[in-house]
Amino acid sequence: MTGVPELLDRVRLGVVGVGNVAALNVAGYLEHDRCDVVAVCDPNGERARAAAARWGVDRAYTDLDELLADQDVDAVEILTPTHLHHDHVLAALAAGKHVSCQKPLANSVDQARAMADAAGAAGVALRVSECFQHYPPLVRAKELVAAGAIGRPTHLRMKTVVGQTDSSFQAGLQGDGYVWRLNHLSPGGHLFDDMVHKYAMALWLFDQDIVSVQAAVRRRDLFFEPCAAIFEFEDEGLLGTMEVSYAPAMWLRSSYYGADEFFEVQGDEGFLWVTRCTGELLDLAPVMLYRGRDNQRTMTEFTDVDADWGTGFRRSSAHFVDALLNGTPAEMSPEAATKVLQLCFAVYEAGNTRLPVDPRAITGSVTPAGWADW
Amino acid sequence: MTGVPELLDRVRLGVVGVGNVAALNVAGYLEHDRCDVVAVCDPNGERARAAAARWGVDRAYTDLDELLADQDVDAVEILTPTHLHHDHVLAALAAGKHVSCQKPLANSVDQARAMADAAGAAGVALRVSECFQHYPPLVRAKELVAAGAIGRPTHLRMKTVVGQTDSSFQAGLQGDGYVWRLNHLSPGGHLFDDMVHKYAMALWLFDQDIVSVQAAVRRRDLFFEPCAAIFEFEDEGLLGTMEVSYAPAMWLRSSYYGADEFFEVQGDEGFLWVTRCTGELLDLAPVMLYRGRDNQRTMTEFTDVDADWGTGFRRSSAHFVDALLNGTPAEMSPEAATKVLQLCFAVYEAGNTRLPVDPRAITGSVTPAGWADW
Amino acid sequence: MTGVPELLDRVRLGVVGVGNVAALNVAGYLEHDRCDVVAVCDPNGERARAAAARWGVDRAYTDLDELLADQDVDAVEILTPTHLHHDHVLAALAAGKHVSCQKPLANSVDQARAMADAAGAAGVALRVSECFQHYPPLVRAKELVAAGAIGRPTHLRMKTVVGQTDSSFQAGLQGDGYVWRLNHLSPGGHLFDDMVHKYAMALWLFDQDIVSVQAAVRRRDLFFEPCAAIFEFEDEGLLGTMEVSYAPAMWLRSSYYGADEFFEVQGDEGFLWVTRCTGELLDLAPVMLYRGRDNQRTMTEFTDVDADWGTGFRRSSAHFVDALLNGTPAEMSPEAATKVLQLCFAVYEAGNTRLPVDPRAITGSVTPAGWADW
Amino acid sequence: MTGVPELLDRVRLGVVGVGNVAALNVAGYLEHDRCDVVAVCDPNGERARAAAARWGVDRAYTDLDELLADQDVDAVEILTPTHLHHDHVLAALAAGKHVSCQKPLANSVDQARAMADAAGAAGVALRVSECFQHYPPLVRAKELVAAGAIGRPTHLRMKTVVGQTDSSFQAGLQGDGYVWRLNHLSPGGHLFDDMVHKYAMALWLFDQDIVSVQAAVRRRDLFFEPCAAIFEFEDEGLLGTMEVSYAPAMWLRSSYYGADEFFEVQGDEGFLWVTRCTGELLDLAPVMLYRGRDNQRTMTEFTDVDADWGTGFRRSSAHFVDALLNGTPAEMSPEAATKVLQLCFAVYEAGNTRLPVDPRAITGSVTPAGWADW
Repeated sequence: MTGVPELLDRVRLGVVGVGNVAALNVAGYLEHDRCDVVAVCDPNGERARAAAARWGVDRAYTDLDELLADQDVDAVEILTPTHLHHDHVLAALAAGKHVSCQKPLANSVDQARAMADAAGAAGVALRVSECFQHYPPLVRAKELVAAGAIGRPTHLRMKTVVGQTDSSFQAGLQGDGYVWRLNHLSPGGHLFDDMVHKYAMALWLFDQDIVSVQAAVRRRDLFFEPCAAIFEFEDEGLLGTMEVSYAPAMWLRSSYYGADEFFEVQGDEGFLWVTRCTGELLDLAPVMLYRGRDNQRTMTEFTDVDADWGTGFRRSSAHFVDALLNGTPAEMSPEAATKVLQLCFAVYEAGNTRLPVDPRAITGSVTPAGWADW
Repeated sequence: MTGVPELLDRVRLGVVGVGNVAALNVAGYLEHDRCDVVAVCDPNGERARAAAARWGVDRAYTDLDELLADQDVDAVEILTPTHLHHDHVLAALAAGKHVSCQKPLANSVDQARAMADAAGAAGVALRVSECFQHYPPLVRAKELVAAGAIGRPTHLRMKTVVGQTDSSFQAGLQGDGYVWRLNHLSPGGHLFDDMVHKYAMALWLFDQDIVSVQAAVRRRDLFFEPCAAIFEFEDEGLLGTMEVSYAPAMWLRSSYYGADEFFEVQGDEGFLWVTRCTGELLDLAPVMLYRGRDNQRTMTEFTDVDADWGTGFRRSSAHFVDALLNGTPAEMSPEAATKVLQLCFAVYEAGNTRLPVDPRAITGSVTPAGWADW
Repeated sequence: MTGVPELLDRVRLGVVGVGNVAALNVAGYLEHDRCDVVAVCDPNGERARAAAARWGVDRAYTDLDELLADQDVDAVEILTPTHLHHDHVLAALAAGKHVSCQKPLANSVDQARAMADAAGAAGVALRVSECFQHYPPLVRAKELVAAGAIGRPTHLRMKTVVGQTDSSFQAGLQGDGYVWRLNHLSPGGHLFDDMVHKYAMALWLFDQDIVSVQAAVRRRDLFFEPCAAIFEFEDEGLLGTMEVSYAPAMWLRSSYYGADEFFEVQGDEGFLWVTRCTGELLDLAPVMLYRGRDNQRTMTEFTDVDADWGTGFRRSSAHFVDALLNGTPAEMSPEAATKVLQLCFAVYEAGNTRLPVDPRAITGSVTPAGWADW
Repeated sequence: MTGVPELLDRVRLGVVGVGNVAALNVAGYLEHDRCDVVAVCDPNGERARAAAARWGVDRAYTDLDELLADQDVDAVEILTPTHLHHDHVLAALAAGKHVSCQKPLANSVDQARAMADAAGAAGVALRVSECFQHYPPLVRAKELVAAGAIGRPTHLRMKTVVGQTDSSFQAGLQGDGYVWRLNHLSPGGHLFDDMVHKYAMALWLFDQDIVSVQAAVRRRDLFFEPCAAIFEFEDEGLLGTMEVSYAPAMWLRSSYYGADEFFEVQGDEGFLWVTRCTGELLDLAPVMLYRGRDNQRTMTEFTDVDADWGTGFRRSSAHFVDALLNGTPAEMSPEAATKVLQLCFAVYEAGNTRLPVDPRAITGSVTPAGWADW
């Protein structure tokens, strides 16, 4: 590297791993007018070729090294199982590729830091593809908070409910994509694999650290872990609560997974609600703002926000391409993703020890009590 | 006492203390067709006489002993400051009066237990006047939960927001009624004085104990204490979160205090929301039920529920009269009110020690750190 | 009269007629700090004296002439049956009293015009007490329309539903107050007696005439008249529809009559809804604004509006007092009230003839076909 | 024909006309597992071939006669401009094909009747593809009405608003598909071309005739015709109002056209709302039911209904296939579609003459005043 990297004129992308999440992530690359998806890679050759055909891609590799040796590939989207992220990302960085990696970045904080260091040394981009950070209702919510719409933030509430749905998306998921999420290949269950999205939001919405976590963590079927947690932010005036519930008999409307999220941000002058995310359990506007300052009490529903959960994926992919084209930072940074992992492990640690935990002190990884016995 | 107490044909009631809350509590006695409010008592004679005139009562005492010596008084409603409840209740029980006492029952668990014991020994009724337990939307919610409308309960969320309003009720409050709430005469602040209502609901909605509390407790102006807490119930499958926020610059619609509550009960088949209580911040139905079992996804809004917060007070008063007339137990029992105090102090203890606290082990009282310095 | 009338320093009011509507209308006079209700009058002496006692008034007359001869009475609120308005108003004007008269102003357009003329000649104020014109959500709606919030208005929809309720207000109504509404003493039924409120709104919201009415008019029990009507305004770009339905088996929430109204004003840039009025059938904000200009799609709920239907009455009364104190015009003017009558009779005429009717051409009164046979 | 027609084992479909609406209509045929789209036909050969490629169809004809001569085609979906429906349908029937024809069935009542007669004589199926009749929220509404959910129906209100949207669907429409809608090739404008959907609903929801129409009809840009109309049904207790507004500067959320519909059906025990249809202007559930009988006041939101407007098209297509497979009648029948045309022309006639019009007496067609001058 000699200082300023050369800007790309177009991005030639290789997709590494074509499991369940690939359709969501790749759509945004396929539709970007300055991105070409030029190669796919999956150890399952049949699956690789099928994806290549579906996306109009010529090159279908079964060996990651082959794809990384392909000089026509500028950047890669790593969509392999999480426990492989560390090795795959390091290999891609070593090959000089720009890297976008599916969340969670890695199975441990140490690994994540090593990956961030390697990207810095290689002088190429490394970012985590965090669809929630690009989901328009949450983007709007962050903008409104930053603009003072609710005054000074005082409380964040994040609720996740896991239920059932009849979406064709969910019906089409391949079961083998879940095996590695349910065993020792993963440091934890749903609070790791899915909740990293919400941990990311808790940190991103206010651009500040969480300094203490308390939690009660339970276990149910499969890898589901009902949870109640308290977050204390750097700003002592801002508290957070997180709820995860598991309701396998409850059907809810969704075009994707049978799950839904609700975010409430309260300030000293108002409230903000993002009433849906993955699913559409409620018939409310995607973003609602209550303002009560100076007795001007109004509720505003923002109906101009694209509330399709899939849009978060598409915009995340487009953002990576644009960042490479413009030479600007690609979100979410590996540093931010590392804090997300720390928060994730802090919840497990607090559940295990029943003591408050400072996420910033977490270095390795934490596994919930009894996880090894599953 | 010689076994079965004689049933009353009418209830002749004395009101002890005519401060801010009296108007709310006494309305239900005045309108009951088998209750006569026959006496009032307040150390401020002018205030006692004004209340007597307003309510059409002949006898206005300034000395509690005089009222208790009045043989025409069957029962008393104790509305004095909380730190006086213990002595006033014991005196009333000793005089053979049936007693309804405003929440919180006492300033310590020990005092509360002594009061319960004294009532048992005297063979008269003692109950706490807990308006939330008689608030129709919450009564409906409890009925729906008990009927299985949401399946097995998995999560309780209780949110309290303290803001501003322009209600004539709030404008008419007398400031001197708050002095004793803000100093050493009280073991704590808003988390004691007001939140006992919500603690009562957490225990009453499911008829089961809370076995562990974690909390982060803050302090703001006056006696306000923002808080985030986690509750673990006897049933391991049921968790709870509690949020208290303080937003003095946020105006909200209310006919009473400038505050509002939101209850969400989730089960494995649906959700229940009580969207308002003291105030009317949101334009939603007072009780809403989402059911998702077997893909029958419907939201039902119950608009036949009286959602006037004042109705809880009126029904609580009517309930006490009816219990005396029918010889049935008067809710809330001193035992239940004692558990409420334990939960209250457990939140303070958890906030002080940053350790999980089992409310059932609390005996005396707990004061939040720094309370003495206020 | 010699030019400018002397301004009053306080208004001493006499109430003429103490039937069902009196409680609603008189509240605003009693609570006004520069108004004294000094006399009441009702042919039923017992009723007059009871009202006088309730309102703290010394003088209870049974003869209108006596009240009008009382020099301590500056102004009168005429709350007698509609067919008596003409004579009572003329007598009051002749006695030099300022007059506020309950809607409908009179049983015919000719009578109304004669009353307006008499007021002009006497140099005193005559206005009609139209509570809807002072109902805060409708006032807000008119302000928003005038401010261009929905662009140019293109459609008005007014819906009235008559159902059932369990309000104490309705339970307390005296049946004899309805007899004269149901027989030949009235030119029509519900489309006359109640719908004048809505006709008034159709004209007032846009400050322009309606030039053509088409209608289908039905009859049901008592005096109820289901109806569908089309209004064409002076502005050809503005149309209106009116619906009246009768649903005696449908219960709805109300603190007053078991009826409710819904107003929708559409413009070329948005919508305005006043979702309730007399009742509270829906759990929606009282005033909602949808704006879609330039793709800025937002729905705003105005929760700072006093949506108690009774407030319209109180503000109407206060407005009359203020107008007398300030020497400003008192709304609704007799000219506007005359147009309201014309619109009312035009609906009947259109229903009778099944031809479009220009309300401005109506002079006398119109009775719905078959009304005489009831 | 010799009595009972032979049931098909699969349906081999030809698509006639591949203009703007084709994508919506054909999707349901493509996805049906017992239907094969085997041929397309369009005078524009390039367009025909592109559609054939898109749908995986081998045969792309430019001449209708060729397609009709194809013995591998069992049934045709006629998607040509409305003025061509008569000739194209008759030709298809003569060729022994089952026919589904896009709405409006024809440009005149006489033509429609001739088409119905021809189908009867040919012994094959003829139906009109009316997507609203298969739109799940409206299907649910009809079921609920029929089940007595709102008691006896008393009022139907149908509102259509034409605004703007930024949907990719609308952006992708080809302008040339609108030319024939705007000139003498069509008997009228938007009240003909689009409102036939709503007229169909007015007749279908209650399975009864409309016997009288009154209307005010306006003209704006292009072919848009703001309108207010009154419908009187056979049942004298049931009235209807229809509103059409044109708001080109108002943006609204839609995945399809920048338009939206609202249906309100009131009965004597409740209300039914279908709050959206083409667009999604409001954030309310697609079907809402208010029931007030016997003071059981509840609002139920049905969130299990597929509210995607495109689903109406897909289900309509699937219904046609299923009807052919099962030998059951295919909706909407030509008789029903003829009544729809009569209602449509009755609105124009009422607007022209300003007299009430009985739709059942309409035979030919009616053109709005001034249409020829456009």
